[in-house]
Amino acid sequence: MFFRLVYDKGLAQASYLIGCQATGEALVIDAKRDTDIYRQIAAEEKLRITHIAETHIHADFLTGSRELARETGAELYLSNEGGAEWQYALPHIALREGSSFMVGNVKIDVWHTPGHTPEHISFLITDTKNSSQPVMMATGDFVFVGDVGRPDLLERAAGYKNTMEQGARQMFRSLQRFKSLPDYLQVLPGHGAGSACGKSLGAVPFSTVGYEKLTNWALRIENEEEFVQEILKGQPEPPAYFAMMKTMNKEQRPALEALPKPRKYSVDDLKMVIRDGVTIVDTRGKTSFAGGHIPGSLNIQDNLSFTTWAGWMLEYGKPFLLVAPEHRVEELVRSLVRIGLDTVIGFVPDIEEWSFAGNETATLEQINVRDLHQMLLLSGNLELLDVRATSEVEKGVIGGAKHIHAGYLQRRLAELPPNRTVVVYCAGGDRSAIAASCLQKNGFKHVVNVIGGFNAWREADLPVAEYQQLTVTA
Amino acid sequence: MFFRLVYDKGLAQASYLIGCQATGEALVIDAKRDTDIYRQIAAEEKLRITHIAETHIHADFLTGSRELARETGAELYLSNEGGAEWQYALPHIALREGSSFMVGNVKIDVWHTPGHTPEHISFLITDTKNSSQPVMMATGDFVFVGDVGRPDLLERAAGYKNTMEQGARQMFRSLQRFKSLPDYLQVLPGHGAGSACGKSLGAVPFSTVGYEKLTNWALRIENEEEFVQEILKGQPEPPAYFAMMKTMNKEQRPALEALPKPRKYSVDDLKMVIRDGVTIVDTRGKTSFAGGHIPGSLNIQDNLSFTTWAGWMLEYGKPFLLVAPEHRVEELVRSLVRIGLDTVIGFVPDIEEWSFAGNETATLEQINVRDLHQMLLLSGNLELLDVRATSEVEKGVIGGAKHIHAGYLQRRLAELPPNRTVVVYCAGGDRSAIAASCLQKNGFKHVVNVIGGFNAWREADLPVAEYQQLTVTA
Amino acid sequence: MFFRLVYDKGLAQASYLIGCQATGEALVIDAKRDTDIYRQIAAEEKLRITHIAETHIHADFLTGSRELARETGAELYLSNEGGAEWQYALPHIALREGSSFMVGNVKIDVWHTPGHTPEHISFLITDTKNSSQPVMMATGDFVFVGDVGRPDLLERAAGYKNTMEQGARQMFRSLQRFKSLPDYLQVLPGHGAGSACGKSLGAVPFSTVGYEKLTNWALRIENEEEFVQEILKGQPEPPAYFAMMKTMNKEQRPALEALPKPRKYSVDDLKMVIRDGVTIVDTRGKTSFAGGHIPGSLNIQDNLSFTTWAGWMLEYGKPFLLVAPEHRVEELVRSLVRIGLDTVIGFVPDIEEWSFAGNETATLEQINVRDLHQMLLLSGNLELLDVRATSEVEKGVIGGAKHIHAGYLQRRLAELPPNRTVVVYCAGGDRSAIAASCLQKNGFKHVVNVIGGFNAWREADLPVAEYQQLTVTA
Amino acid sequence: MFFRLVYDKGLAQASYLIGCQATGEALVIDAKRDTDIYRQIAAEEKLRITHIAETHIHADFLTGSRELARETGAELYLSNEGGAEWQYALPHIALREGSSFMVGNVKIDVWHTPGHTPEHISFLITDTKNSSQPVMMATGDFVFVGDVGRPDLLERAAGYKNTMEQGARQMFRSLQRFKSLPDYLQVLPGHGAGSACGKSLGAVPFSTVGYEKLTNWALRIENEEEFVQEILKGQPEPPAYFAMMKTMNKEQRPALEALPKPRKYSVDDLKMVIRDGVTIVDTRGKTSFAGGHIPGSLNIQDNLSFTTWAGWMLEYGKPFLLVAPEHRVEELVRSLVRIGLDTVIGFVPDIEEWSFAGNETATLEQINVRDLHQMLLLSGNLELLDVRATSEVEKGVIGGAKHIHAGYLQRRLAELPPNRTVVVYCAGGDRSAIAASCLQKNGFKHVVNVIGGFNAWREADLPVAEYQQLTVTA
Repeated sequence: MFFRLVYDKGLAQASYLIGCQATGEALVIDAKRDTDIYRQIAAEEKLRITHIAETHIHADFLTGSRELARETGAELYLSNEGGAEWQYALPHIALREGSSFMVGNVKIDVWHTPGHTPEHISFLITDTKNSSQPVMMATGDFVFVGDVGRPDLLERAAGYKNTMEQGARQMFRSLQRFKSLPDYLQVLPGHGAGSACGKSLGAVPFSTVGYEKLTNWALRIENEEEFVQEILKGQPEPPAYFAMMKTMNKEQRPALEALPKPRKYSVDDLKMVIRDGVTIVDTRGKTSFAGGHIPGSLNIQDNLSFTTWAGWMLEYGKPFLLVAPEHRVEELVRSLVRIGLDTVIGFVPDIEEWSFAGNETATLEQINVRDLHQMLLLSGNLELLDVRATSEVEKGVIGGAKHIHAGYLQRRLAELPPNRTVVVYCAGGDRSAIAASCLQKNGFKHVVNVIGGFNAWREADLPVAEYQQLTVTA
Repeated sequence: MFFRLVYDKGLAQASYLIGCQATGEALVIDAKRDTDIYRQIAAEEKLRITHIAETHIHADFLTGSRELARETGAELYLSNEGGAEWQYALPHIALREGSSFMVGNVKIDVWHTPGHTPEHISFLITDTKNSSQPVMMATGDFVFVGDVGRPDLLERAAGYKNTMEQGARQMFRSLQRFKSLPDYLQVLPGHGAGSACGKSLGAVPFSTVGYEKLTNWALRIENEEEFVQEILKGQPEPPAYFAMMKTMNKEQRPALEALPKPRKYSVDDLKMVIRDGVTIVDTRGKTSFAGGHIPGSLNIQDNLSFTTWAGWMLEYGKPFLLVAPEHRVEELVRSLVRIGLDTVIGFVPDIEEWSFAGNETATLEQINVRDLHQMLLLSGNLELLDVRATSEVEKGVIGGAKHIHAGYLQRRLAELPPNRTVVVYCAGGDRSAIAASCLQKNGFKHVVNVIGGFNAWREADLPVAEYQQLTVTA
Repeated sequence: MFFRLVYDKGLAQASYLIGCQATGEALVIDAKRDTDIYRQIAAEEKLRITHIAETHIHADFLTGSRELARETGAELYLSNEGGAEWQYALPHIALREGSSFMVGNVKIDVWHTPGHTPEHISFLITDTKNSSQPVMMATGDFVFVGDVGRPDLLERAAGYKNTMEQGARQMFRSLQRFKSLPDYLQVLPGHGAGSACGKSLGAVPFSTVGYEKLTNWALRIENEEEFVQEILKGQPEPPAYFAMMKTMNKEQRPALEALPKPRKYSVDDLKMVIRDGVTIVDTRGKTSFAGGHIPGSLNIQDNLSFTTWAGWMLEYGKPFLLVAPEHRVEELVRSLVRIGLDTVIGFVPDIEEWSFAGNETATLEQINVRDLHQMLLLSGNLELLDVRATSEVEKGVIGGAKHIHAGYLQRRLAELPPNRTVVVYCAGGDRSAIAASCLQKNGFKHVVNVIGGFNAWREADLPVAEYQQLTVTA
Repeated sequence: MFFRLVYDKGLAQASYLIGCQATGEALVIDAKRDTDIYRQIAAEEKLRITHIAETHIHADFLTGSRELARETGAELYLSNEGGAEWQYALPHIALREGSSFMVGNVKIDVWHTPGHTPEHISFLITDTKNSSQPVMMATGDFVFVGDVGRPDLLERAAGYKNTMEQGARQMFRSLQRFKSLPDYLQVLPGHGAGSACGKSLGAVPFSTVGYEKLTNWALRIENEEEFVQEILKGQPEPPAYFAMMKTMNKEQRPALEALPKPRKYSVDDLKMVIRDGVTIVDTRGKTSFAGGHIPGSLNIQDNLSFTTWAGWMLEYGKPFLLVAPEHRVEELVRSLVRIGLDTVIGFVPDIEEWSFAGNETATLEQINVRDLHQMLLLSGNLELLDVRATSEVEKGVIGGAKHIHAGYLQRRLAELPPNRTVVVYCAGGDRSAIAASCLQKNGFKHVVNVIGGFNAWREADLPVAEYQQLTVTA
């Protein structure tokens, strides 16, 4: 049996290629959308991708199953569990509790493991030439290393009312059943540390049933009510694009033919598309952005959070342009395509040419925490905005701050006074750069970003206040 | 806790980088010699390599521990078990049964697990912030997926008389102790499928104690005598360079400053070094080699066996040149350096320039199995040479074949008649190409390589004979 | 004024990008078909390509004028001289003797310079901000460094009867007029050394009117009859694809959307397309090819002659596959596209996988000149074939050789005895490898290639004979 | 004869590789310091570099002659003209007026052509197999396209008193002799547009004697006095590093073994070397730099002027670090090495990591021209600084500006009031960014850069004043 993990750090998302060397067949579980990597591994190992499976309808990325099927001719193996609302609207071989199929000599047994989603299944993998006992379980968003899949996403991200608690109870029952698996069994989760599909995922890629039973908080709670309460507590705000993913992953849609190849824009072309309302995504570092940027740009920096924040801030189906050096464009395009943001039409390497041609650049004022402290003592006439997650705000804020999660800012702009100076902070300064650029884009004239954010504030031993009015609304 | 596998396919060799994100410290276990990859991972993850450990004195590769220590300032953690003969002659922190050390919050407990070698240790890894129970064991060449480390290498490869059986008995006892570990524990072996450090390693990278107890042949034999007999049976011939590795890994030696950068040779320079006796290693495909090559070249093809066959065929300390396209040279140099073959001085991309300049090229005759069958029926006046491993020969040969493992050919040339046609075969045609080129290099005038080898012979339903005189000598 | 030469070594073909920095406009003369290089230079220099011109309807490459026009929106400036038969069938701005146009401040004056072709024009370039006197002349295939364009191509390559002499006389008159230009004027020719559009082109890229008057043989002959006789003498055989180019360059055809991206073929797919008659072009070195190749492959080596020989040997519109390492595929595809061979559908990196899968490989016997000499003395029963150009054969052959130019071999196979051994030679062994592979492809069983060819024969002081029957037919 | 131009755009510097294909010998004239390109061309063309020549002791770049000689074994051919002060202190074959040597069949005749420097020679190149007449002249800094070498550098840049006028007179005489050359001769100059070795060089790479006689201002003045006056007028300020080059090119110095490979610095290492006084060269765009930079950094942007400004601003022999993305580091190192700035020890890709680690970043205030105009009307309490060249200032300034050429700023800081706001402008904003960063580095607290500079000021129709006190001092 051949086994390979393919891991996307930007989404902390794991997919697996499992093959039978004797017959040359191979299965890909939870493929990402830029599928060339699977075909490349298969080619190197002299395998053919013949089976494509998903553990569930994903919310945090657009799967590449359709693309891979088109490219390889492999069949799709998808869940038919979960009821009418959770049926894939595309041709597939239906999997249910108890289903099984062979990938050469490798046997795949299907468990229905609802909780994260109603249709969620897990794959018990047996290397039949070696043993009749299973060797691994691909658990998708059921069991992670140190955590379990959150059952509140459908309600919080996709608007399915009253599914949160039901999901939590299903998860409890699925977990009791998981405990019946042998301790030695390897657990291959669908996500690693940093994913928004859970709240405390570990950084080690794999685990075992026995180790999870020992250490995973969710498997150690024996009381259902306690479990339900605990799992619904402290989950991070789900990114705005999750709702879109649920639909796009479920419905029929054309497979991506090839990665978009955005062309380099001249200043003239750039001005034209800006007039047409195309969004500019400036991926440079926040200090560079602060120094000068094309007015109206969003500052989503090119780091591991790029995909997620692009998902929070960009509008599906609308064209946008990148400010990014040429050698980074392909990787950024891949990141975007992984969540279905396929409408990138071009890029400019930086803004020097724009500025040289005599065009206006906007700057973003930055302030350090000591100066902010002075400013707050001296003047009440500013709006202090905390754009962190609720779980962070609960541990303390800078006194007087209003809290709006950066991802919700665009739809809650009305809560902010347009003519006052808005000083934005987050934990370290990155999310507040996104938020500040979003405010500028929406006409706020006086926006200031706090360098180093709340972490710098606390390290400078400045006073931390309790947050008063928790008004987190999606 | 951070965890990353670094795997070299050429030697089927696994190393591990384990870090503590809270303190930024990191440990590398069984580093390969081109160490840039560890430093790169550490830099990306914002870790510092502070600890370097080895499970034992390796025989199949030259570790990069010295290099990595020089580059990072990290300390070496090495075994002091095994008695006087097995002590590392370089500065290190001594590890013994029961030793333990911390890498940030990650605890490493040392088990003495002799069998493969007397000083062999394994590392029990506990993520102390998560649990007081261990999560993984790095087992080196003690327990593999589906196999265990062979105890006969010291005797067979390095000439330590009468250590084979003793090692087998030690291994038996070490394995009984291994069974006491919890089933759930993840097992991180030092090798994967294809390594010559065992006989039947699996292709899945990791396993668990429980799964190995279920499926690993070595853990299922409860009787010591039966185990000793079984483990010493059917082990592959150890490559010639293993003896060299044992010494080089144990003794003090200067760390490699940088990867060799062989320069492109002109035809004139090439002729000069050939006159000086430099070995030419032609890494092209065997069919290309057959069409024409620089007389005296060895044909070690650029595939996954390249490192091992370079180790079998090349002489340590002697300069050699590669025939390889420029874009492959760096990777080939890395492969060579991993087993301490640092004396590559140059390369030529192919032999067209050589031939164009009017120099003689040698060809290698190839024959398919049908024609070979005819030839054998018609003429007895040829020497048929089987260069496969003993374990393969035991399952049948082409009638009349003499058996010399390709790796031993150089020292057993006297057993072959220099003036007769020698027809060489192996399983598929690759090893016989090496052997045939070795015969040509040593003055044999009439050498023929069998296309497709024994596999093609059997597929053509030609008669298979039992091998008569097994005279395998190292 | 901005000036840049873009030179394709494979076809020895020069194109020019000339721009006006003050207005940002730029002209490309005689663009090659993979046009990205022009757009890249223009972008770097902040120029826009606004004008595209051709000196004539080229025979040796497919121009990229249409492609570049589609990509940039530039206008085409093409000759309307030469009579009805030589009119471009695509939209353009018509140029005639005396026409002129401005590219920003750069003035282009058109001279009608027939001889190589009836419609041929040359461009006199004046940097008007600097001087009212011209600075350069782009002469296309009119005047080269040390040579002039051959007037016999239309007749010899494209079948226009009785145009040869007329062209020679036109060339004579055009040259007389050329002499009236000032000595200092720089000459920018359309080809460099190695082109088949002339017979003795120099390796220096540029020249001047005065230096050509001093040194160019064609400008030193004052007598028209003598000139006509001289210019029609000793011209190389025009490659077979020239006729195709004439048509494709003149007629309307769709612009190439993007460079073909041939995919890597599996052995199974390869077998399928071979059954379907797809041509295999093996671009490996001839010695590698000799060692083993897919039966029926053509051996067109990846060197500077690749494009030309692909043009000689391949059939337009028919799909073909390359045997070439992945990192060379793009460059080979570009070479092919430059002469309109757009139907490359795939590649395999070498033939080891083919051979490993048990498929038959063909070999090509090679012989050195000493052994050939012996063979010729001993046995008359072989066909000795000289595949060099007529101009080479005229200087002597190996006694008994029949002469067929390698490029004409395919259509003259009937002149060779299918059941006899055919021994093929050229000057150095490359063209004979092409010819030998072509014979094998067409069913000749016993084909031998002479290593080092006629050059090696002569260097070995073997006897050279005079060639008897010069029967060169197109 | 083989001919190839190698052009460095950063220094607008031309070198030439001229070879004889018949004998395989080749000559490099005025080699740049990163010499791999010459060896690569030679290898491709199957030539050996056997001769290395220089036209004169260069002031604007460090030649790679020593490096190339060490790498190839070629001999150096250098001028012995010019008197005792201008003798190369390194082993070479001495060239004088009338000397000649052969490179295979290519004959090189030496002309002594003083003016730019006393020892300056030019090379008349004759392709003897083609003609007894010369084909080209490599003129170095004697005759450029449209200009001639300035005779004032020795005095202005290297402090040789009273050599300016003498040089001008020598140049006049050399030019009269140049006119005796045949019109048709190609002229290969040592520099193109943008070089500081002349004042009005053209963008076309080559010219001819005849065209220069028609169009070059210097060849059209027939009166010596008028010529002397004209040539010494309006020459640009010579960069500070020119003096250093003169010495380094003349004296013996060790050849560079290999290009420096600066390593990536961690924030901790960076802080350490900053404490040690290492200079930080921030190569990002000026808007990014304005947004935030490591305090004390110089902002020398990565564009075509990088080399020259590095030569103006950096101190020879002192270590420095780059802020530059990894993929640009090699090219920047090459640029630096070309003028002997070999002491680059490391780089950081940008400043986000620095800022994230809580370190202070400095910003640079930027102002547009409209706001500047308002500011000037309202407040007299600021210092307006024009850092352009004298030739630019002579055409008008912003009223009230003080003029110090950006390159002289470092040594004239005392002329500026440390506690006042200094507003800096140049033509477009790039040189003023360098100057502004230099002021910040030297303790000026209030520094403002004018976006778009004087060009933007004029385009906005704001009032232009005459500059009053021209006090340009080197």
